Amino acid sequence: MSGHLAVVGLGPGDARWLTPEAGAWLAAADAIYGYGAYLDRVPVRDGQARHASDNREEGARAAAALRHAAEGAKVAIVSGGDPGVFAMAAAARAGAPLGHDFCTLSLSDNLKPWELIERRLDAAATAGFVIALYNPVSRARPWQLGTALERLRRHLPAATPVVFGRAVGRVDERVAVTTLGDADPANADMATLVIVGSRETRIVMRPGVPLVYTPRAALDAST
Amino acid sequence: MSGHLAVVGLGPGDARWLTPEAGAWLAAADAIYGYGAYLDRVPVRDGQARHASDNREEGARAAAALRHAAEGAKVAIVSGGDPGVFAMAAAARAGAPLGHDFCTLSLSDNLKPWELIERRLDAAATAGFVIALYNPVSRARPWQLGTALERLRRHLPAATPVVFGRAVGRVDERVAVTTLGDADPANADMATLVIVGSRETRIVMRPGVPLVYTPRAALDAST
Repeated sequence: MSGHLAVVGLGPGDARWLTPEAGAWLAAADAIYGYGAYLDRVPVRDGQARHASDNREEGARAAAALRHAAEGAKVAIVSGGDPGVFAMAAAARAGAPLGHDFCTLSLSDNLKPWELIERRLDAAATAGFVIALYNPVSRARPWQLGTALERLRRHLPAATPVVFGRAVGRVDERVAVTTLGDADPANADMATLVIVGSRETRIVMRPGVPLVYTPRAALDAST
Repeated sequence: MSGHLAVVGLGPGDARWLTPEAGAWLAAADAIYGYGAYLDRVPVRDGQARHASDNREEGARAAAALRHAAEGAKVAIVSGGDPGVFAMAAAARAGAPLGHDFCTLSLSDNLKPWELIERRLDAAATAGFVIALYNPVSRARPWQLGTALERLRRHLPAATPVVFGRAVGRVDERVAVTTLGDADPANADMATLVIVGSRETRIVMRPGVPLVYTPRAALDAST
C-alpha cells in the first residue's frame, strides 16, 4: 500500500471548529509535520511521529513530508486556518461584517511590492468591498498596518467600523470593535485579523463587544 | 431557563465538513427553521420540530424563529455554507486558487444596481484579485454571468483559469476547470460558485480535474 500526504487545515484554533474530515486525517496519520505553534494544537497520539519546524522553513518541511509519504507513510502537514485561504472566525465573532461583497488582502510585502498592496487597498475601498487584512503586522513589518489605515482614510469616512480579531477561538482571544478614525495599529499583532467595513457597514451597540453588520443591500451605485 | 436562537452554518453540504460546534447546536435544538433544501441536510431527530420555508420568506422565517426562542425554546436557524460568508469548498476541490489576495462578489442585482457590480468587477480584475462569483445565475437572472465574463475579458487574458464548482461535497457535485476565453455561462446554475483567476493563477494539468493554483508571490507591481 502506498503512502499519502494530506494538507490539513486546523481552523482558527478551537477544536469545536475543526471539521470531522480534518480530524480523521490527523487521526490516521503516521507522522505530522508543521510549524511548531500549529503542531501544538494537535492532540498527541502514541505511535505518531511529530516533526515541528519554524517559519521560513516551509520548503524543507514540504520536501521532508513528501519524501516521507513517498516511502509509504501516511503523512499530514498542518496549517492554521484554511490551507487555501485563512481563518475567518474573527468575522463570526464580530457579528456579520462580511454580509456582502468583500476581499481579503495580505499586508505582507515579503512576496509582493508595497505599491501593489496600496493599489489593491485603493481599488477595494473605492469599489465598496469590505476589506479583511491578513498579516497586518510582524516584528519585521512594523509600519505596514498604520500606512494601510492611513491610505484607507483617504477613501472611507472616519466612522467606518473596524474589527481587530486576535487569536479567535483560543484562550488569549481578544476582539475589539472601533472605527477607522480611531483604529490604532498598535492593537494588532501577528495573530490579529483586521476587518475594515464598507460605507454600508454599521456598528450595533450591545453590552460587551458590539456587533458589526454589513447589509446585503447596497442601493446606491455611488457607494 | 430562557430560550435561545442559534444561527447555524451547514457548510457546503458534506457532513464531514460540518463543525462539531454546528453539530452540537443542531443536536440541542428543540426546533429547527430554514429554507427547505438546507433543512433536508439535517438528520431528523425525534422530538425536534422542523419548520421549512421557501426563498423570499426570510423575514417571516426569522420572525417565527425569534418568537419561538422568546417563548423559551432552543431554536436553530440553518443556512447553507457559512451564514456570514458563503461556502468556499469549491476552492479546496480545485486546488489552491485562493492562495493570495481575493474577493467575493455576488452577481445578484436584486439588492444592488448592476452598475455597481460592474464597477466592482473592473476594480477587482484590474487590481489583481482572484474573484469568486456568488449567485452567478438564477431563473430570474439568466444574463448576469455572461455579461460579467464579457466584462472581465476586457481586463484579463483569455488564458486566465476559471473554475465552475457545482454542489461541492454533495452527491451531484461537478467541478470543471476552463479558461476565461472558453468559459460558458450555461455551465453554471444556482448551486455553482465561479472562480476567476488573476494574472498569476495557473492551471496544473493532471489526470481528472486539473488543479488551479495562485502563488503567494506577485513580484510585478503592474499585474
